[in-house]
Amino acid sequence: MVGACHSCESCKNDLENYCPKMILTYNSIYHDGTFNYGGYSDTMVANERYIVHFPENMPLDAGAPLLCAGITVYSPLKYFGLAQPGKHIGVVGLGGLGHVAVKFAKAFGAKVTVISTSPSKKDEALEHLGADFFLVSRDPDQIQAAMNTMDGIIDTVSAVHPILPLLGLLKSHGTLVMVGVPDKPLELPVFPLISGRKMVAGSGIGGMKETQEMIDFAAKHGITADIEVVSMDYVNTAMERLAKNDVRYRFVIDIGNSLAATKP
Amino acid sequence: MVGACHSCESCKNDLENYCPKMILTYNSIYHDGTFNYGGYSDTMVANERYIVHFPENMPLDAGAPLLCAGITVYSPLKYFGLAQPGKHIGVVGLGGLGHVAVKFAKAFGAKVTVISTSPSKKDEALEHLGADFFLVSRDPDQIQAAMNTMDGIIDTVSAVHPILPLLGLLKSHGTLVMVGVPDKPLELPVFPLISGRKMVAGSGIGGMKETQEMIDFAAKHGITADIEVVSMDYVNTAMERLAKNDVRYRFVIDIGNSLAATKP
Repeated sequence: MVGACHSCESCKNDLENYCPKMILTYNSIYHDGTFNYGGYSDTMVANERYIVHFPENMPLDAGAPLLCAGITVYSPLKYFGLAQPGKHIGVVGLGGLGHVAVKFAKAFGAKVTVISTSPSKKDEALEHLGADFFLVSRDPDQIQAAMNTMDGIIDTVSAVHPILPLLGLLKSHGTLVMVGVPDKPLELPVFPLISGRKMVAGSGIGGMKETQEMIDFAAKHGITADIEVVSMDYVNTAMERLAKNDVRYRFVIDIGNSLAATKP
Repeated sequence: MVGACHSCESCKNDLENYCPKMILTYNSIYHDGTFNYGGYSDTMVANERYIVHFPENMPLDAGAPLLCAGITVYSPLKYFGLAQPGKHIGVVGLGGLGHVAVKFAKAFGAKVTVISTSPSKKDEALEHLGADFFLVSRDPDQIQAAMNTMDGIIDTVSAVHPILPLLGLLKSHGTLVMVGVPDKPLELPVFPLISGRKMVAGSGIGGMKETQEMIDFAAKHGITADIEVVSMDYVNTAMERLAKNDVRYRFVIDIGNSLAATKP
């Protein structure tokens, strides 16, 4: 985002991301009526409130996706009291959001279980990302064995999927946080909420103050996104690969070098 | 409830109601293997942990329903930070739970809006129960005018119903608390949760310590349930009337006088 009203309750509480007049970086109208084209350019002017300082040891390319995926998982981990040693956190879906959720949750000292439909992601989750456990969400026995063990779950899946098993995994008073946006409503069974005072919540990116805090925390703990750097002329291929989930885990476009190569 | 394990995390935190081994007062097996028949008798023996002291000014008949309906709404109002002056609280459904929710929320100093499908309940809500506003949930204009104004909503409806309009009524970071149990899953739209960091939670009665606190609070503030006292031989008629929502708002069976009348 690049703007907001700066006078509402959300803005006053450094939550520009929940301001009803929040202005997106790309494909939106700025205060002066001009159109925002985002970061696909060699220069960009922005209000300093929306600038994040990258610490020296934070690489621009592997740090860039943290400004979306990173803050999207960091903010709810903090807000819902999950950013504490000893908490058991589930991460549903191992993609762009999920892989950084594992890294942040581990850095907070939590025990992390990755929950995925793909048994093939087990090694990646445990060996490469350092998760503690791996659950195949479609295996009732594995779900049953982990019932009532999690303090919170970050659900990064944007497809329609059942949340009943996820509510079962939560301890009483636990929170299921949706950060992916399925395009149709999910089925919400009410009794499992009531019998354990459980919650289903949503969370969307974070305010600028917390985004800076997240980048500083990531730099301190050596957290970056796993990326594949591509040049601008690769974007159509990248989009095709994205549709097949064929990226580990974020494409980053090298704008500077792409543009330099086009200059005489 | 009349029992629980007394050793789990919930029991240790005075939340026997969330103990996995919680024993219901009626139609369940007690620790000693005997069957619980509840309060439909002239005497009943219970563990003292499950006894609530009624202050002198709390009538037994109009206070009895508070042990279910009262604590069911009192507990989430406290837990979700809604029991504070100046909060704006919505109450969905004006029945046994809803009418005491209005009374407790007003006693906490909140501004209360009753949300109902029945326009005919407006006078009752505003004049008799002291609610501040009344919304007909099926009127899109009324809902639209109240969007993003409520800190929390207590939803007492046990029928399947849309929660999208209710999520819209919440301010950012607000909570929709389900205390009724629809027998089928509800539709949960995810985007409205994410765009305002909103929550849908469930809550079921309360622990014994909080139940005593609730009764003491009710006595102090003159809160009782609105009841119709009936004798035991009226129960079949009462059940028929319940099915038609024809009670304002709880039947209370006078066990003592019913039994006395049968004695020679």
